[in-house]
Parts: sequence; structure tokens; C-alpha cells
Amino acid sequence: MSQQMPQPTTAPTTAGRICLQPGQVVFAGSGPGDPELLTLKALTALQQAEVILFDRLVSPEILALANPEAVLEDVGKEGFGPQVSQHDICDRLTAHANAGKRVLRLKSGDATLFGRLDEELSACDDAGIAYQIVPGITAASAAVAGIGQSLTQRGRNSSVRFLTGHDTQGFADHDWQALARPGEVAAIYMGKKSTRFVQGRLLMHGATLATPVTVVENASRANQRILETTLEHLPTDLAEARFDGPALTFLGLAPRASITTQTEITDLKLELA
Amino acid sequence: MSQQMPQPTTAPTTAGRICLQPGQVVFAGSGPGDPELLTLKALTALQQAEVILFDRLVSPEILALANPEAVLEDVGKEGFGPQVSQHDICDRLTAHANAGKRVLRLKSGDATLFGRLDEELSACDDAGIAYQIVPGITAASAAVAGIGQSLTQRGRNSSVRFLTGHDTQGFADHDWQALARPGEVAAIYMGKKSTRFVQGRLLMHGATLATPVTVVENASRANQRILETTLEHLPTDLAEARFDGPALTFLGLAPRASITTQTEITDLKLELA
Repeated sequence: MSQQMPQPTTAPTTAGRICLQPGQVVFAGSGPGDPELLTLKALTALQQAEVILFDRLVSPEILALANPEAVLEDVGKEGFGPQVSQHDICDRLTAHANAGKRVLRLKSGDATLFGRLDEELSACDDAGIAYQIVPGITAASAAVAGIGQSLTQRGRNSSVRFLTGHDTQGFADHDWQALARPGEVAAIYMGKKSTRFVQGRLLMHGATLATPVTVVENASRANQRILETTLEHLPTDLAEARFDGPALTFLGLAPRASITTQTEITDLKLELA
Repeated sequence: MSQQMPQPTTAPTTAGRICLQPGQVVFAGSGPGDPELLTLKALTALQQAEVILFDRLVSPEILALANPEAVLEDVGKEGFGPQVSQHDICDRLTAHANAGKRVLRLKSGDATLFGRLDEELSACDDAGIAYQIVPGITAASAAVAGIGQSLTQRGRNSSVRFLTGHDTQGFADHDWQALARPGEVAAIYMGKKSTRFVQGRLLMHGATLATPVTVVENASRANQRILETTLEHLPTDLAEARFDGPALTFLGLAPRASITTQTEITDLKLELA
């Protein structure tokens, strides 16, 4: 097949400004919470949509930017099991689009990472509903910026892994042997409940107790907190910290030393206009 | 140490609107090229900065949004070797900040991925210059949205890897054995010149010839092109496609079937206002 059609396709891109039509759906990532981390495209979609289906972690400050006449539907799911079922979300999406509404499906972070996007796209495909996908800032990007580090670094790691602490079957299994190697950097999503499991697996595969681990709660938000610890102390330190917001766990990264001492940076922070 | 200080720090966050002060630096990701994928924060920084040091891949449409009085300095580097040295970039950054300018360091994609951010942050730390980091949309997020897929999918992969095709030593080495496993998904940055190397390594470690591979050129831009191929045909197909823009290679992902047939999506595309 590839031999017969080696030429690239120039499928319609979504470059430029969005114009959301009746009966169409935009899937957009809202970013990690700070409304200033919305993309211009997502902001436009918020203002054009007549119906907005949003996840639990989409922040109120972001929903406040929606068209005041838009209908906002909370289809939030908790970590270990749905409140609104995925099937129900797909049904609502297609029903609104089929009723001729301009629909925005707003997912926290980046819609293409751990967001079950495929199931919703397939529902639209099956129903003949046109859509486009707007990427968003994922929590790992915001969290690593918050600790003054980068996900990759010359001489340390030329790859980075994003993984989830649990999936619907329970704790997610991964390539622990590779993750246990010195210099590896990984961002664990939804990892708060799986710290003992992750710790155990990594130590079993030879990771050192002193491996730096950083947990960032509420990345990018005004109530962001940073826990600097090690693989050895991760479960106990995290329990003591009592994080109740969304948290991103970095294996192999400690906060930059200047992050906690650099007070001038507060000058950069202003109220939202 | 962790035992003595288990409490999380609430380091100053950068939530809310940016107010770039004289003598300070904002490091921001510009996203993959579509100016509508800028974050609100990056747009504000573009408008406030007096000096902007930008990378080769930052698109002209984005630079057009800068304050008209800002000084724009191209510090672009080609893939296999610097034009402006990293040392020189650090020098210019700190010199402008020390001269009291509001400085924006604009990197294509997300500043924290394959951007040598650490070296520039260290230069600021050493010079006592305050900064903040604004995450951006990375090319992989935009490219996967462009092919109608997601980076992770229940039942297929609960982790994804971002890696680089080459580093300064030449071809970058990776955990090929893990990458060769069925169902693995990885995004390769700067991978155009390393396709034969990557193909060889993966096949050596047991990847099948039929492994789907998709290359997205100019992700998110009006001239985006998508090459659907397999590990077997990757080098020849890519050579024939003659991509000369930045390209992102997905291992383990094919474009969604509806992407090339869904013509209604063009209705969503409007000129930039």
C-alpha cells in the first residue's frame, strides 16, 4: 500500500482561527488550570460554543470565559471510576451536535493525553459529525516549568516518558526496568494513589533510594504546591503533604535550586485583568 | 533531608497574567507554528517584550504579533550544529536583561522539551536575573491532533515517549527494545535524518515491518503534510516525500481513517483575522 501511495496527504489542517459551525464539535485541551495558559484557539472555541461538555479538572476561571449564553455540562469523572460514563458522554456529544448545536468538548490539560479522546472521536465518526482537535498545554509541561526544569537535558536524558499511575484495571504496569535506570525522566499522571506501587516496582528493578522525585500539585494554578522528595520517602512525604488537588509526579527531577529562593519572580505575577 | 522537610513548598507560581519587568526574562514556548496555538501568556509576553530572542522554527506569523517596537534577534540553530552558539545565546540573554530590557526568549514548541532551556536558566541564575517559564504546545500534541489520534489510548498504550532522533553526538541512542514492542507509541523529534538508523535499531530488536509510522511535516501550519507509512517503508517514503519543514515522526500510530476523508472540517477553517 505504501508502495502505491508514497506521497504525503495534505489533509485539511486546522491552522488559523476557529469558526465553530452548527452541528460540529471542537475537542480542546484547556491546559492545566491557569486560564492564561489557554491557547487562543481554545479561547475562541469557548466564546463560540453553545454547549460545553467539560471535565472535572477544568478550572472555574476557565469556564468563566465561556459565552455567557452557553450551556455548561459537567461530565467529570473521578480517577477510579466514572461518574458520567464514557458511553453517556459520547451520547451527549453526538446528541447536541445532531441537534445543530456548536459543541465544545473541553478536557483538562491536553486532550490527546490520557483523555479517552479516541472513544469520543469514534462516536463522532460513526454519527457523521465533523470535528477538530485543539491541543492544550499538558500538566507535565506546566509542572516542569513550575519547578524550573526541562523535561529533557543534554547529557542527562534525550527522551522523556509520560505515563499514568493507574488505568481502569487498577495500577498501570510499565517498563519499570527502563524507568529504573539513572537519568531517566518520567512524568506520572494520576499517580497519587499508586506511589507505593511505583516505588516498589522501581526499587525491585534497581532504582536507587535517592532517585529525586518531585510532586507538583495544582500545576500552574495560584495554589500550586511543590513537594521535593526521593523515591525512598515518596509515599510517606506525599501522605504528609495531603495533596487533594491534581498532582503530577516527576521521576528523576528535583526542583531547580533557585526556584524556592527566587523571590523576584513574584513581581511578574499580577492579578488577572 | 526529606525527613526534616517533608512539607511541600509553595514557591511563587506564575498563575495569571504576565507583567514582564525591566531586567527580567520570560522563557516561552511559541507552539508549533499556528499563531492561534499561542497561549494567552505567550501572546502577552510578545506584546510586552522589548527584546525577543527567537529560534529558527518560530513562525513569521507569530513574530508579527510582537510589539512593533521590539527588537527581534534571530538566534536560530540548525539541527546538526549551531549557527549562533548556545554560549552566545546565553550571553545575549543576560546582556539584554542586565541592560534593563524586558526580554522574551521565544522557543518553538514547548520550551521545556529539547530546547536546551537548562543552560539558559543557569546563565540567568548565575547573573542574578529573574525569569519565568511559560510552557507551550509541543509539536507532538499538535501533530497527533492533526492525524486525529491521541498519544495514549486505553487498551493500547498507557504511556508515551518523546525522544529525539539525534543529539549533538550524532544519532541518539534509546531503549530500542522497549520501543520495538507492539502497541508502543513514541514521538520522535528532529528525526528526519535518522530514519534509517531508527528503522535498523527497531527491526534489530524485533519490531515488525508493518509497524505503523506517520510523519507530520509543519504540524498545525497551513502547509501541514501527513505521510502514512510503515517501519518497512519509512526511509524510502520519507525520501520521496521531500519534507523540508520541521517533521514529527510517530512510531505506532497511523492517521485516523476519517482524517483524509472528512472534508467538512474545512468549514472550520477561516482566514486569520
